[in-house]
Amino acid sequence: MATVPTTRWDDLLSTRAQIGWTSPATARRRGASLTESLYEFGGGLPDPASFPHDGMLDATARMLREEGDLAMTYGEAQGYLGLRQLVCRKYEIFENLITEPENILVTNGSGNALSLAFSTFVDIGDAVITEAPTFSGTLNTMRRHGADLHGVPVDAEGIDTGKVREVLEALRSQGRRCKLIYTIVNFQNPSGPTMSLKRRQELVALAAEFDTLILEDDAYGELRFEGHTLPSLYALDTNGRTLRAGTLSKILGAGVRLGWLCAPTEMIPALQGFLFGGGVNPYMSRVATYFLRDHLEEHVELLINVYRDKRDAMVRGLREELDATDAEISNPEGGFFIWIKLPTGTDTKELAKWAAEASVEWRSGSGFMPNGGGQEFARLAYSYESVQKCYDGGLAFAKAIRQSMS
Amino acid sequence: MATVPTTRWDDLLSTRAQIGWTSPATARRRGASLTESLYEFGGGLPDPASFPHDGMLDATARMLREEGDLAMTYGEAQGYLGLRQLVCRKYEIFENLITEPENILVTNGSGNALSLAFSTFVDIGDAVITEAPTFSGTLNTMRRHGADLHGVPVDAEGIDTGKVREVLEALRSQGRRCKLIYTIVNFQNPSGPTMSLKRRQELVALAAEFDTLILEDDAYGELRFEGHTLPSLYALDTNGRTLRAGTLSKILGAGVRLGWLCAPTEMIPALQGFLFGGGVNPYMSRVATYFLRDHLEEHVELLINVYRDKRDAMVRGLREELDATDAEISNPEGGFFIWIKLPTGTDTKELAKWAAEASVEWRSGSGFMPNGGGQEFARLAYSYESVQKCYDGGLAFAKAIRQSMS
Repeated sequence: MATVPTTRWDDLLSTRAQIGWTSPATARRRGASLTESLYEFGGGLPDPASFPHDGMLDATARMLREEGDLAMTYGEAQGYLGLRQLVCRKYEIFENLITEPENILVTNGSGNALSLAFSTFVDIGDAVITEAPTFSGTLNTMRRHGADLHGVPVDAEGIDTGKVREVLEALRSQGRRCKLIYTIVNFQNPSGPTMSLKRRQELVALAAEFDTLILEDDAYGELRFEGHTLPSLYALDTNGRTLRAGTLSKILGAGVRLGWLCAPTEMIPALQGFLFGGGVNPYMSRVATYFLRDHLEEHVELLINVYRDKRDAMVRGLREELDATDAEISNPEGGFFIWIKLPTGTDTKELAKWAAEASVEWRSGSGFMPNGGGQEFARLAYSYESVQKCYDGGLAFAKAIRQSMS
Repeated sequence: MATVPTTRWDDLLSTRAQIGWTSPATARRRGASLTESLYEFGGGLPDPASFPHDGMLDATARMLREEGDLAMTYGEAQGYLGLRQLVCRKYEIFENLITEPENILVTNGSGNALSLAFSTFVDIGDAVITEAPTFSGTLNTMRRHGADLHGVPVDAEGIDTGKVREVLEALRSQGRRCKLIYTIVNFQNPSGPTMSLKRRQELVALAAEFDTLILEDDAYGELRFEGHTLPSLYALDTNGRTLRAGTLSKILGAGVRLGWLCAPTEMIPALQGFLFGGGVNPYMSRVATYFLRDHLEEHVELLINVYRDKRDAMVRGLREELDATDAEISNPEGGFFIWIKLPTGTDTKELAKWAAEASVEWRSGSGFMPNGGGQEFARLAYSYESVQKCYDGGLAFAKAIRQSMS
């Protein structure tokens, strides 16, 4: 019934469910979904003009002809083998990394993949190291697991490994261990840098030295506009301490909800133990695989050009207004986001007002911080809107910033 | 890399991950997937001949024309509104139950739906009441959550509510509370009975009296071959203490992995808090909805006829051999399963051998018991094989039983 009686049941909630429960509205977190704004720069929404509608229909027809019954029934708990093979091929093509389908566990997008790692390794109160800032969705997942978050700053080379060591040593001196280090290695979301090779090697060595794990999040790696692909932490880690999350959301479409964890084979059963409900979408996995098997490289090539143009347009729009200020504007080598350190004297309440006036959807930096702060930053996604609107909206947001400066 | 180094990481596992970890192979549980057996009576696999391949392709084409971009991007965290409306319509058509889309949370099959309820309400060590026997997949999920399981027997009227009261009183006398009562109300899996109206009313009253919740699992309700549909616990419960799980797995295809929880609206945010990763499959939800919106009733009608014939054939085959024994064979009014109390003197090790010899895939009753026992039972699924094979395989399994009697 829609009418809800007033029975109390919140005293039955689990400890994890009680986290943040005092304000239940927060549980309905604002996801990466469309708003009514003229300039939709909020969530990391993929470019709709690039969605391969005809290709998906064609793939559906071929897939149903070739393996319809298998697509409509229960599949492997670890995920459709064809998709796991495709992920391995993707790693080989783009990174020259050799993996096996046994290393891959298919999930409901990479958010689900990350949650499996937290469920498998994190008890309430366990220490976790994360970048500050980091992706707000993962912050939500870590908090729901009751993780004790230790934020470490990010600079132009990625996570500050010296600070990581300090945190690890501090925990050790308290007789505690860090359960895992969560990091976004390429075009870090939200702040933009790609972790340098030196830092990557240092982080892998730290995980071994302090007997912890690394959770490497790489949703955007193929969407590199310039610069060279560096080896992943998973590839560098000869100790088998790294789990890596990936997704088709950014190279095919987020609506297919297909992601994965890539992990040492012996870890897979532990992770799979939290994937309740019989494996993730055999039907959808097959449609996506049939399309990408034939179109992966050309489709990624197309997307790189699309997103590069959008990034350039937005950066241009922002700079036209902000170069006269001390604002710092990121210029990421790939991905979907620009991170802005607001000019000195920006009144963020005013900014919220003027940006709304200009119908620009954006995100305040505070949502990306594990331990508070961040109000002096803003994140814009250039992924969704057209090139022209990325320029116009970038300019409009920059003007809103100027209007908010005291 | 496929080569796994021997780094130790199992001392980093969470408490829940450690459950059953001494034998990691158990984590790779045998799902409802196909084996090589001649007679596939193991998992609850839907009838492949009924899969609407043409209908799915047609629905895909129409869906992409009408809302392609929306299908390929992030959707609502609660699930695609069209699917939630379809679920409400289904409840109205088959049960005359009025619900609102705000009551529905879309999940990756009903297994995922049930896991959300356990994550939301169950801490490690919390008491949960379940039927004995009950669905093995849910037993796995409850155990992974660390639930302290209290099994209550099932008779021809469903769960024994007298025994439920005894358990609730025993817990109360220990100063403990039952967090929830898990029950499969229609064609109980595996044992077959439909809970009587009287029992349903008693169970709802018990939940209120002892201040606990009910988790009502109903994956098969529409597939009723005979007898009358009774009101669900969710419909009877005016106190808002009942959550209900449903699925498209049995009326469309398990490969689409679409299920849901139906719950009081105020509970939805708490449950949604454990659905990490941006809502379940907007693309797949739309394809399924576009098909079922036009075909729901006729497709269910078709399936009822298919599964009734299969049940009849299997029961006939079993009885031909077993009527001369004291075996008890269920004759469920719907669903996918037959439950057999093996004749006195059946050697279950012998039965495993002879059934394998006859190439019959089946399940021992022991896998369905929350607190041990059950070896004297067997479950067969008649859902997957043809009518003829249900008869032949039923006969073959009955002969294997006869061969195993001392």
